[in-house]
Amino acid sequence: MNNISTYQTAFVNYLQNYIEERHPKNLYDPVNYILDLGGKRLRPVLTLLACDCFDGDYNKAMDAALSVEVFHNFSLVHDDIMDDAPLRRGKETVHEKWDINTGILSGDVMLIMAYQLFENYKPETFQALAKVFSKTAIEVCEGQQSDVDFETRNDVTIDEYLKMIEYKTAVLVGGAMKMGAIVAETSKDNQDAIYDFGRNLGIAFQLQDDYLDAFGNPETFGKQVGGDIIENKKTYLYLKAMEFATDEDKVNLLKWFSSQPENPQEKLEVITQIFTKSGAKDATKKAVEDYTEKAFGILKLLNISDEKKQMLKQFGLWLMTRNV
Amino acid sequence: MNNISTYQTAFVNYLQNYIEERHPKNLYDPVNYILDLGGKRLRPVLTLLACDCFDGDYNKAMDAALSVEVFHNFSLVHDDIMDDAPLRRGKETVHEKWDINTGILSGDVMLIMAYQLFENYKPETFQALAKVFSKTAIEVCEGQQSDVDFETRNDVTIDEYLKMIEYKTAVLVGGAMKMGAIVAETSKDNQDAIYDFGRNLGIAFQLQDDYLDAFGNPETFGKQVGGDIIENKKTYLYLKAMEFATDEDKVNLLKWFSSQPENPQEKLEVITQIFTKSGAKDATKKAVEDYTEKAFGILKLLNISDEKKQMLKQFGLWLMTRNV
Repeated sequence: MNNISTYQTAFVNYLQNYIEERHPKNLYDPVNYILDLGGKRLRPVLTLLACDCFDGDYNKAMDAALSVEVFHNFSLVHDDIMDDAPLRRGKETVHEKWDINTGILSGDVMLIMAYQLFENYKPETFQALAKVFSKTAIEVCEGQQSDVDFETRNDVTIDEYLKMIEYKTAVLVGGAMKMGAIVAETSKDNQDAIYDFGRNLGIAFQLQDDYLDAFGNPETFGKQVGGDIIENKKTYLYLKAMEFATDEDKVNLLKWFSSQPENPQEKLEVITQIFTKSGAKDATKKAVEDYTEKAFGILKLLNISDEKKQMLKQFGLWLMTRNV
Repeated sequence: MNNISTYQTAFVNYLQNYIEERHPKNLYDPVNYILDLGGKRLRPVLTLLACDCFDGDYNKAMDAALSVEVFHNFSLVHDDIMDDAPLRRGKETVHEKWDINTGILSGDVMLIMAYQLFENYKPETFQALAKVFSKTAIEVCEGQQSDVDFETRNDVTIDEYLKMIEYKTAVLVGGAMKMGAIVAETSKDNQDAIYDFGRNLGIAFQLQDDYLDAFGNPETFGKQVGGDIIENKKTYLYLKAMEFATDEDKVNLLKWFSSQPENPQEKLEVITQIFTKSGAKDATKKAVEDYTEKAFGILKLLNISDEKKQMLKQFGLWLMTRNV
């Protein structure tokens, strides 16, 4: 077994060879730009790790891993247009640096390039990878649409919210790992189990993101603490608070969540207090732990050595203890 | 062998079964809307026809044909956003009826759905179809980008223009036919020949479109006659006129092609005169004939019965004698 940084280094080398000048430049320069922006390369690392865990040669999973990363970046380019986001990883977004039309078309070509990356696999592997990929990609689109729909709805349930984050974020974590398992040609049971491991870990990860947005350490949390509250985003914390809070606090929540004060300090203080007092903070922390435990429980089902299970668990812990 | 309307009817029935309510509705309603807008269903018919010609059961090519149609409609949705087009087939475009973000995301999901339509084929067929599809789809994106790039360039050569229309339009005609040939499991030589047949016919078709835009019969040409001239589009006619015209007429052309008069009548008259006088009109007509002949010449290479070659030729003639 290797450690995370081994996979990261190998993947980034592989990615650098993939990034080359292609024509028309106005189509491919944005592709290379976004792929080169950096990041932890979490999803492709998961593909390599999963392949390794099932006794595959992780070098053979490079194209599948790259496909996952290209898809992820496609979704960033199109999501940034939809969210009108000016920055991505501290740099200009594609549609800001070029324009919206360029963002649309470069995103489109990336989605196709992601499928092309399966072409070097033999037909059975190709089909299995493309099936998981398509199912995952469709769900990511559905999750994105639900996220948009939820902005204008006031009756979103906890179940609907969990389904939304599962689709928008977690299935790609599961899908990335399953693709590694497919390249390793492990059993269908192992493939399904690693998918569920990744999916549950992905949900835990996103719920933790909700939690840290309000209660994270500003110095280590990658994003602006309170960003979700400022944008009136109905996260798990908000939905749980609306479930648990006193009637008075619910009115207060609703009032603050329909305002966007220029100085958000008071809003942040009131809201985080309600999140804490209502028990929403604890409930969210508990949900993070539950989904993490669920993921670790699935490891028992895997037909691999204890050493490898330990490796997967280590990885999960590493993922969940980032930027607290 | 069947005639065109048999394929059309069978395809439209199959399409109607595919169009069903899916959730989230804001994602899939636009998909169903654009797929249901109608049209001649030219590209999927080509897939069925090609399958039939190579002794395949054309019913088995339905999913491949549908994939081609879904892809084509994906490209319409995204192109209409990029072109800021209000209407498509006389109805509101998706981004007009909903909004740009909906157009982007619904288009994305269609591109993925197009790949999913290959999933019922066996692995070898799946891979072969997806490869042709991806190559074609990438080229369509590249063609679209070149078309955008050409708007702001004054040094576009005839070769560059031909490459652009080949990618933007013709490769999908060839690709649609090749996919039918793949489902029929005919030889690689036949697959390549039918692709070239379709590709050349597609170029002829687009050049004819350029020709008819200036010289078509307003009563039978589907679009506004003179539309390209009004929009200063540098079509084959324009590029040939810039090659052949007298220096005086070149100056005239450049002047008119940098203006957008409210009443375009005089512009249309002057430009079509220059197109005729310079020999650009005849050259374009000749190019249409040359590419059509090239396509028909390729039929000789096909290892199929004369009856089937005749059928393909009939189809080509039908395609090329539309709305003159």
